[in-house]
Amino acid sequence: MSETGEQMRRNTVSIRVAAVGGGVISERMDRVAAEEPIEVRVAGPGQESVPLAVTMRTPGGDFELAVGFLFTEGLISGREEVARVSYCEDLPAEEHRYNVVTVRLNRPWDPGVAGRNFYVTSSCGICGKASLDEVESLCTAVVAGPTVPASVVSALPDRLREGQRVFDQTGGLHAAGLFDVDGNMLSLREDIGRHNAVDKVVGEALLAGQLPLSDRVLQVSGRLSLEVVQKAAVAGVPILSAVSAPSSLAVEAGERFGLTVIGFVRDGRFNIYSHPGRIAA
Amino acid sequence: MSETGEQMRRNTVSIRVAAVGGGVISERMDRVAAEEPIEVRVAGPGQESVPLAVTMRTPGGDFELAVGFLFTEGLISGREEVARVSYCEDLPAEEHRYNVVTVRLNRPWDPGVAGRNFYVTSSCGICGKASLDEVESLCTAVVAGPTVPASVVSALPDRLREGQRVFDQTGGLHAAGLFDVDGNMLSLREDIGRHNAVDKVVGEALLAGQLPLSDRVLQVSGRLSLEVVQKAAVAGVPILSAVSAPSSLAVEAGERFGLTVIGFVRDGRFNIYSHPGRIAA
Repeated sequence: MSETGEQMRRNTVSIRVAAVGGGVISERMDRVAAEEPIEVRVAGPGQESVPLAVTMRTPGGDFELAVGFLFTEGLISGREEVARVSYCEDLPAEEHRYNVVTVRLNRPWDPGVAGRNFYVTSSCGICGKASLDEVESLCTAVVAGPTVPASVVSALPDRLREGQRVFDQTGGLHAAGLFDVDGNMLSLREDIGRHNAVDKVVGEALLAGQLPLSDRVLQVSGRLSLEVVQKAAVAGVPILSAVSAPSSLAVEAGERFGLTVIGFVRDGRFNIYSHPGRIAA
Repeated sequence: MSETGEQMRRNTVSIRVAAVGGGVISERMDRVAAEEPIEVRVAGPGQESVPLAVTMRTPGGDFELAVGFLFTEGLISGREEVARVSYCEDLPAEEHRYNVVTVRLNRPWDPGVAGRNFYVTSSCGICGKASLDEVESLCTAVVAGPTVPASVVSALPDRLREGQRVFDQTGGLHAAGLFDVDGNMLSLREDIGRHNAVDKVVGEALLAGQLPLSDRVLQVSGRLSLEVVQKAAVAGVPILSAVSAPSSLAVEAGERFGLTVIGFVRDGRFNIYSHPGRIAA
């Protein structure tokens, strides 16, 4: 299931820019985060693979993204259902080869089920409640989980930022990092899409047989939306922390699923929006 | 077509938070940006309206979002096709009433066409090229456009930020602002989704009969993705500027559609990624 080194190097692109400042414009080379589409296909034993979704993403961690996406959207229940993950290497055009990932399952795949699930989980029905109901059915509400000192939470954004290699080169990328309760970083993934970064981290844990993530803290860059809280809940994460603000539905979902939702982690201060009992001052 | 004041006030939600800092945890009230789903329905004369898309958004500017989305996705060609925009006020549950917007057109609506377009424009095919081809067919490449002094570009992020009322209350929201070539802000819209903020600005201009935006500068908070460049191109915007980094496909699309793409506008400096001729040092 390994990805090639070439693929991993494709997460930035070199470009020529005109740098403006101090009254002068000078040309130089720079790097930007790569943004490319990925098509995820799924098949059961002996079945022809069928496209499930196409999304823009930053190359790298593609297999983790594909299985993490399937898991957090409730389409597979765990690693035991995954037989094989591979690039579609028989595509005629070389440039597309690493943009199609096929997940082969150990059990039959019904494309129709995926379509119905999608309407419910991603599109959120009309009031968001249908979506929350669906997620609730996917995950046991997180009732226990560890207690983490406030000082550990305060240190997470800097540790996440220090680990961001693509951000260092390009200055612009979302990140999701998985930490233990002592604040040690166990995994970090970057992507132009914040939910993709979370899917990559969850997918990596799934492939390594480490789900549910019931004694872990998930730290994300930027803001918290409903979608990210849902994905964390399905993966069993008890504490979800963001550098910036949560949305109203993110807070509501955290409350409902038993997650400790934290935001505005800055300068030794932060806000807890739901289930504060897991944080020790 | 007007929205109610009540709807405009729904863009933030009051919540109770536990504020942690200096070794103490204290409870207080805070506000977060509202995140709610919106369903956009479309109908021709005498037709039953059919759902086109459901997306999460921050309430406020819903009619602009709906028509802006239809326009930037290439599903309507201009204001002359729009007969009426309204909330679905006959819904039984009051809480859903303002989350369904119907756009009634002056011409027949074929839901099948929408499905096909979506695959191409939003899902981007496999290599992104199909998507770029589709967008190119929607817009005349921006060949002329104004010349703007570097000092005007440098001032845009602060002016955008100063106008962000919801950000002031919640600390977390994307924004898109439309400026004239002297740096005067003509419009500002906020949303939890960066593409929604752009659709709101474009939709407002469409409803006011101000498209194409061929002598305007569009400034956005955060990063630039392909999707935002596509939407700006369809609206005829010649100069697109972001506080943070563009992605690789955003730069490629800017180059191809004739847009001046600017990023990292900070501390009197910025980078021009495509068509730098419109900026005067």
